[in-house]
Amino acid sequence: MKRPKIEHLVNIILFEDREVGLPLRRDDHRVIHMLDVLRRKLGESTDVGIVDGPRGKAVLKSVGDEYVELEFEWDNVPEILMPIDLVVGLSRPQTSRRVLQEATSLGVRQILFVHTERGEPSYATSKLWTTDEWKRLVRGGVQQAFTTRFPRIQIGVELADSIAATNSVNTRICLDNYESSLGLLDAVSSAESIVLAIGSERGWTDNERNLFRKNGFTLAHLGERPLRTETAAIAAISIVAARMQRG
Amino acid sequence: MKRPKIEHLVNIILFEDREVGLPLRRDDHRVIHMLDVLRRKLGESTDVGIVDGPRGKAVLKSVGDEYVELEFEWDNVPEILMPIDLVVGLSRPQTSRRVLQEATSLGVRQILFVHTERGEPSYATSKLWTTDEWKRLVRGGVQQAFTTRFPRIQIGVELADSIAATNSVNTRICLDNYESSLGLLDAVSSAESIVLAIGSERGWTDNERNLFRKNGFTLAHLGERPLRTETAAIAAISIVAARMQRG
Repeated sequence: MKRPKIEHLVNIILFEDREVGLPLRRDDHRVIHMLDVLRRKLGESTDVGIVDGPRGKAVLKSVGDEYVELEFEWDNVPEILMPIDLVVGLSRPQTSRRVLQEATSLGVRQILFVHTERGEPSYATSKLWTTDEWKRLVRGGVQQAFTTRFPRIQIGVELADSIAATNSVNTRICLDNYESSLGLLDAVSSAESIVLAIGSERGWTDNERNLFRKNGFTLAHLGERPLRTETAAIAAISIVAARMQRG
Repeated sequence: MKRPKIEHLVNIILFEDREVGLPLRRDDHRVIHMLDVLRRKLGESTDVGIVDGPRGKAVLKSVGDEYVELEFEWDNVPEILMPIDLVVGLSRPQTSRRVLQEATSLGVRQILFVHTERGEPSYATSKLWTTDEWKRLVRGGVQQAFTTRFPRIQIGVELADSIAATNSVNTRICLDNYESSLGLLDAVSSAESIVLAIGSERGWTDNERNLFRKNGFTLAHLGERPLRTETAAIAAISIVAARMQRG
């Protein structure tokens, strides 16, 4: 079997609420995963969840040529997402793909992909965004993290609008390795909500920095080394999450 | 031009000490990068460095059909690498590729790829390791980070040997989301050296956990969510580095 380029383990198979109790088509990709990848037999179970709902087990009750029946047993409801809003510059599709998956796996509650002065307008018209590809990547990130919680995704937002949209968040941080002398860990205190802005690969302009400053953002850095946007996103979310979890 | 799958910005062009002052072949990949990608003209300069040495500028002095001459001006010597040794389970090549690049970019001083009980022996014989591919990836990570410092890489080490090899490091942490109740940020104190062990995608066995415990490792976690090995590596290095830099 050919592996997709960026692969996530399917640690949990997700269903919509309205699907529960109904037969599933034999060619449904989740049925194929359960029968042909996990090789479950009649009476055996696998980890499942309802989108934004509980997690549990599905037992294989019947397998026909056209339809399959599952019996669900619900166990618990996964933790809510972390109160972290990520504002990130629209980047090359391969970079945005990784940001979508990894920020989702790490558990942020919202990702706003914004236009930046140094980004390319063409990034927003990639097939990543014009097809359902981005939704599959988010789902992959949720499944990797063994949860049922989906972050809210907004695409092609103006930077000023993203700042206005996160106005109620009082810890506001903009990553900037050029003008900041404050390490990210020192810029974050304990369990609050946080908006974290990360530029596209060529960084912020002075205009953009000023807009952030005027709106109560603190500039913070991740050390001296220039990092790729997706690496910076994983690093920054992880540091903020570790600080928040510490309380 | 076809882009490689995982791309790093070449923020600095690296040379060996012995190359300085000698003409370079026109078909050298660094000359091609300078002339054909960066489009430097005679008299123009670009950022360069000597492997494990200083950083500076190279001015294009002459361009012939076969050879090119550069004039170097040295500026400063990059910071030494962080005293972080990464012990990581040999994983699928695509995972190991990302660990190599990203851990290098983040600035760890050593990466030991170890055999684990749940890893596949075939991982160690991938062309990633049997060709020079791994060296190119490390170089890419160094260039991304705008430095000249190369981490030490060891491949196919036995877990017990990696533990012995890092015996002088007194803060020893093994990431384990199953049996640990201590968050990584709480397991690390300020500016010490640290060895950080991260399993391959299927995690550690009880045998391996016991080996870690017997050798003074503390088990720590990154939260409840299962993460991919490469994501866990970036997250863990970033948290430890942020804590160390704080002092």
